[in-house]
Order: sequence, then C-alpha cells, then structure tokens
Amino acid sequence: MSERLFNFSAGPATLPLSVIEQVKSDLPVFGDTGASVLEISHRSAAFANVLEEAEDAIRTLLAVPDGYKVLFLQGGASTQFAMVAMNFLANTGKTADYIKVGTWAAKAIKEAKRAGHVHVAFDGEPGAYTHMPRQDELQLTPGAAYVHTTSNETIQGIQFASEPDTGDVPLICDSSSDFMCRPTDVSKYGMIYAGAQKNMGPAGVTIVVMSDELIARVPADQYSMMSYAVQAAKGSTFNTPPAFSIYVVGLVAKWLRDSVGGLEAIRALNERKSQLLYDTIDGSGGFYKGHAARDSRSLMNVTWTMANAELEAQLIKEASDEGLMSLKGHRSVGGLRASIYNAMPLEGVQALAEYMKEFQRTHG
Amino acid sequence: MSERLFNFSAGPATLPLSVIEQVKSDLPVFGDTGASVLEISHRSAAFANVLEEAEDAIRTLLAVPDGYKVLFLQGGASTQFAMVAMNFLANTGKTADYIKVGTWAAKAIKEAKRAGHVHVAFDGEPGAYTHMPRQDELQLTPGAAYVHTTSNETIQGIQFASEPDTGDVPLICDSSSDFMCRPTDVSKYGMIYAGAQKNMGPAGVTIVVMSDELIARVPADQYSMMSYAVQAAKGSTFNTPPAFSIYVVGLVAKWLRDSVGGLEAIRALNERKSQLLYDTIDGSGGFYKGHAARDSRSLMNVTWTMANAELEAQLIKEASDEGLMSLKGHRSVGGLRASIYNAMPLEGVQALAEYMKEFQRTHG
Repeated sequence: MSERLFNFSAGPATLPLSVIEQVKSDLPVFGDTGASVLEISHRSAAFANVLEEAEDAIRTLLAVPDGYKVLFLQGGASTQFAMVAMNFLANTGKTADYIKVGTWAAKAIKEAKRAGHVHVAFDGEPGAYTHMPRQDELQLTPGAAYVHTTSNETIQGIQFASEPDTGDVPLICDSSSDFMCRPTDVSKYGMIYAGAQKNMGPAGVTIVVMSDELIARVPADQYSMMSYAVQAAKGSTFNTPPAFSIYVVGLVAKWLRDSVGGLEAIRALNERKSQLLYDTIDGSGGFYKGHAARDSRSLMNVTWTMANAELEAQLIKEASDEGLMSLKGHRSVGGLRASIYNAMPLEGVQALAEYMKEFQRTHG
Repeated sequence: MSERLFNFSAGPATLPLSVIEQVKSDLPVFGDTGASVLEISHRSAAFANVLEEAEDAIRTLLAVPDGYKVLFLQGGASTQFAMVAMNFLANTGKTADYIKVGTWAAKAIKEAKRAGHVHVAFDGEPGAYTHMPRQDELQLTPGAAYVHTTSNETIQGIQFASEPDTGDVPLICDSSSDFMCRPTDVSKYGMIYAGAQKNMGPAGVTIVVMSDELIARVPADQYSMMSYAVQAAKGSTFNTPPAFSIYVVGLVAKWLRDSVGGLEAIRALNERKSQLLYDTIDGSGGFYKGHAARDSRSLMNVTWTMANAELEAQLIKEASDEGLMSLKGHRSVGGLRASIYNAMPLEGVQALAEYMKEFQRTHG
C-alpha cells in the first residue's frame, strides 16, 4: 500500500488520519446495523444517532446559541450563493450588500444579481484582493436585506481577523474554508455556511448555521429543497440527506472536540502552523513573496509567488517528489498555495517550511 | 465485527459486498495519490479518472446515444423536481404534463406547480396508486413543455413495463428507484434522472442523462448550480462535486458491467428475484395480499399487506431477528415492503420467501 503524503490541497483536503481509520473500521458493517453506513436507511435509529451526534458536536464546539438551527444541505457553497438570494433577496424590493473580497465573493455576487439588486459594499478587486476591509471601508446600505461576506478567501489566502459590524442587518457569511478554525461568536451572524470539504469532511455536504429569525423570512412558495424553512422543519431529512458525508463530518467534529480540545486549541495550533510559513516567507529576503497584506493573512491558505513561473513550477514538482502534495496556486491566479486546514498536522507544515528553506539554499 | 444481514431498505439500500470491500481497501490511501479518495482534489488527474470511469461505465451499460450528456449532481430527485420545472417550465407560458402514479410523482407535481402550469395527464390516486397507466389512459397536452413520469414508485411498488409514448414532446423520467434495473432505450427520453442511493450507490449524488436538445432550452440567466447547461459545460465540476459518492457509483456501475454482465443479465436476475416473492404472495391463499396490479408489479419494490397491523408488525420484528432487515412499508402507506434492488443477492430473496412461507405455516 502506498504511504500517506502531506496533502496541501485546497479542497477536498486532508482529513485526520484517525477519522479515515474509523471510516475504514466501520466497513463493511457499522455497529450493530448489519450493513455499512453507506447502506442504512436515513430513517433508521442508527442514522438518526449519526445526525444527532454530528449536530451536537458542532453546537458544542461553536457554542451555538438558542434560536439557531444547524442544517446539513447539499450542493456546496455555490448552491448557497443561489439559495441565499432566492430566499432573502428575490421579490423583496430590497438591496443586498456584498463584501467583495476575492474570487468566491465575486461568484456569490454573480448569482445574487440574478435574484435582485446587489450593492458592492467593498470591492477588493482593484487591489488584487490582497486585504480584507476595515470597518470604515465598508459602504453599507441602511435597511439592506442582508450583508454577505466571505470570512476566508481560499484562492487569495486572505481572512477577516473578525467579522464586520452590520448593525441590525443580518450578516450572512460563507465560511467554507475557515469554518471552525477558531472560536466564532455565532450570535453576530444571521447565517454561517460552509461546504465541508475543506475543514470539516468530504465533499457533498454543506453545513448551515442559521437564526430562526432569518428562517422566518423564507417565502412560503419556495421550492422545498431550496427552502431553509422546509429543511429546518424536517431536521435536514426532507429527503435523503448525504448520509455518509454527514457521518464523516460528525467524526471530524468529534475529533476536533475530543482529541484537539475545541476551537481555542485549534486556533492556537492554526496560528502556530501558519506563522511557521509566514516567517519562512518573511525571512526569505524576497525569494518568496507573500500575496496577502499582513493584517489579512489567512490561517488556512498561505499564498505566495516567486521570481518567475519556472522557479515556481520547479518547487511544486520537487516538493511533490518529497511527499509535499498539491502546492500549486489556483489556476486563476497562479503562484503557490499551501492549504493548512485544521487537519493538517504541525509536522506537515514543519516539513514544508524546512523544504522551502532548503529550496532557497539550493536555488536562491 | 457484526455480520452483514440481508438489508431490504428502500434506500439508502444494500450495495454489492465487493464494492464495499473495494472502498475499504482504498482506505487510507487511494492508488498512488498519497491520500484517500475523500481527500484528493476534484481537479486532480486521479479524480478526473474516477469521474471518467463512472461516466464510461454508465454510457456503456445504457448504450447512451450521441447527443446526450451524463451528469453527476447533488440534492437527490427532490432537487430535480425543482430544477426540471425551473429550467423547462418557468416563464415558458407552456403547460407541463405530469403522470401521477404514486407518492413521488405527486411530490414532483407539487414542486412544478411553483414554476408554472401543470396538467395531470393521469391520476392514479383515486385507484390507490395500484397500477401504471396504459397509453390510452394518458391525456397528453399537444405542445406541452415536457411530459414528466416516474418509472417506478418505491412506496407503492409499481413500475412501468415500458415508457409511455409522448411523441415529439420530451419525456422526463424520475428513475431513482429502478435506474439500470433493465435495458432502457435512452433515445426515447429527453432526460432520465436518478438519486443514486437505491440502485447505484450511496446517497449524495444524482445521475442525470439528458439530451443536448433539452440542455439547449436552459435559460441563460439561470442560477449556475441549477443550470443543466452550466453543469454540462463544466462536466459536472462547475464546483466541487460529491467526489466520494461518484467514486462509489463508478464502482457499482463497473460491478454491474463486469461482474453481473450488463443490463440484460440484471433484468433476468431481477425478474427471478421479484417472481420468487410475487409467487409467495400469490400462493399464500390471501394470507399475503399484494398491493400492485399484476401488470404493474415492480421488479424493485415488492409491497404487500396482511390481515391486520399486529400480524404485519410481528412478521417485521421476527424477520429482523432472523437477519432480514427493513421490511416495514413506508410510513405513509403501512404494510410491508421488500426492496430488492440490483445489489440484493438472490440468496437474500430466497431466504425471505422461505421465511414468509414459514411464517404463514406458524401464524396462518
């Protein structure tokens, strides 16, 4: 059997080895069900327990307040781009404010414009998406339907230090690439959503944490699968949910709670890991050039460029030969990117930092 | 480790043991990727190969003609209920014909009515959904946007012997519970869709086979994730697809092609399996009463009732103790149901038929 390598993929991304081993040991029979978790009814007691444990672990980790639902949906953040606009912008006659901080925010805006009027409250594109806006850079619309933001831009490698203040207007946040990377005050949000395949599990399930207040705004004639109200009323089982993906999300959440020790502990680890790489970049005398402004550097995706594309390709290729996988930057921006989500062990980041220093010694 | 039992669940449902064993052996490392299939990038060569193999196997099995796309989407058939209507009924000013043959057809109609005008071309509800309509029972609308049908009704246990003739109007078929249970002439359809979790894999992926003609009708301003045109143009990777579920669907399709021998072979097996149970019902002198009319009996879901609910509950409980799982009928209709999809081995059905005879001897 081939060995496991350090996987810096931006998503789907590395998962805790203990989780993968649990998945393996639950095949071909899950507990006393007589079948694998891929095969049991979503109406069975065993699956109800899987769903409940996943939700409980997320509620505990994030300290989700009363008055919020935790949902497991399908279609990734891209489906949320449409669902948010279909439910909370279309036919309201209102404006939705969007904070445009990178590629994913821009995609969300594109979908929302199909539903209604969008105001770009901050546009990071002229600045090449290198920094997250300060509060005084936001031009918010009084009485907006909602404010949409992206807490971490995977492609550019920038992250909000903390959420913007939107007053009485509900804040809706795409947190796909930094969900549960650190403590978050859920009460400041109307909705937080995250495709699981970066920080929380495999592709195929999207976690939505949403206030009952926002759910109450869902139009009654909405398509059932696109209605947060229907999904909430049915506890994410209006139809067959993505059962296996939810099961893995539950394992990851329990690993985060029980093995790592919660969100303060993972924040400390994520700060240590990312600092190792940023120190390597900063200490390289310009051999490595970080993309993000210092105050906007991401804990999750470290992005940088080098003198030319040939040198970048050489590092990517040689690192891969050394077992450091998937360091190529997103095809839309080039350069390099190390995605170091919750499940990337410190050892992987240490190995990468050492490798970068060695590469500079031999190629600098 | 607990043993695997015979699992008659209506979905998620039993999968071939060889597939489950392959999944297990591909953990924690898939091929030479250095990671599991849960963790590799959907843009990697390894995943591109997974996707291509799954599509190729489906194309070969169904003999999909040129001019059709095979897509892997999310959200189950229930999302297709909305997507079909959003793309092909809304804002057309046309009528869509729906053939109402059971619970799932009725759900599809409910969603379509949110988009536009629906004509029920046949209503099986007054007849308690016991039979599929003959061609002369259909009241089709000339020039309809499309005709929607359900090839197999999981809850009632009825199945079309062959597809209705809709002339020039595109036929759109929910085949979630009988996809690839027998050969199908794809050229007669504009679209066939199927949630995977009954006959093809785990929950979390929906297979769509759609003609280029129908794709050309998708409105340009459609939300990207709800646009068949966008999904087709991007080869099911507009955003991160449900990678693991697609991988398992590929394994199931390859099992069907290479181990079973294709759709003629699986039809013969499915006819033999279902006949065993229908013969048991018919030979019981009324102890077991089949729900479906004889000409509409399903190869996939065998439904029956008994003299009273107590006796039914007793059979379900005692069968479960004997390792024959999940025989309870759907909560909306009661009675009993044995779902015997492609992956249910003949031995499972033989064991159930024997058990039913024994139960009648001891309780009849």
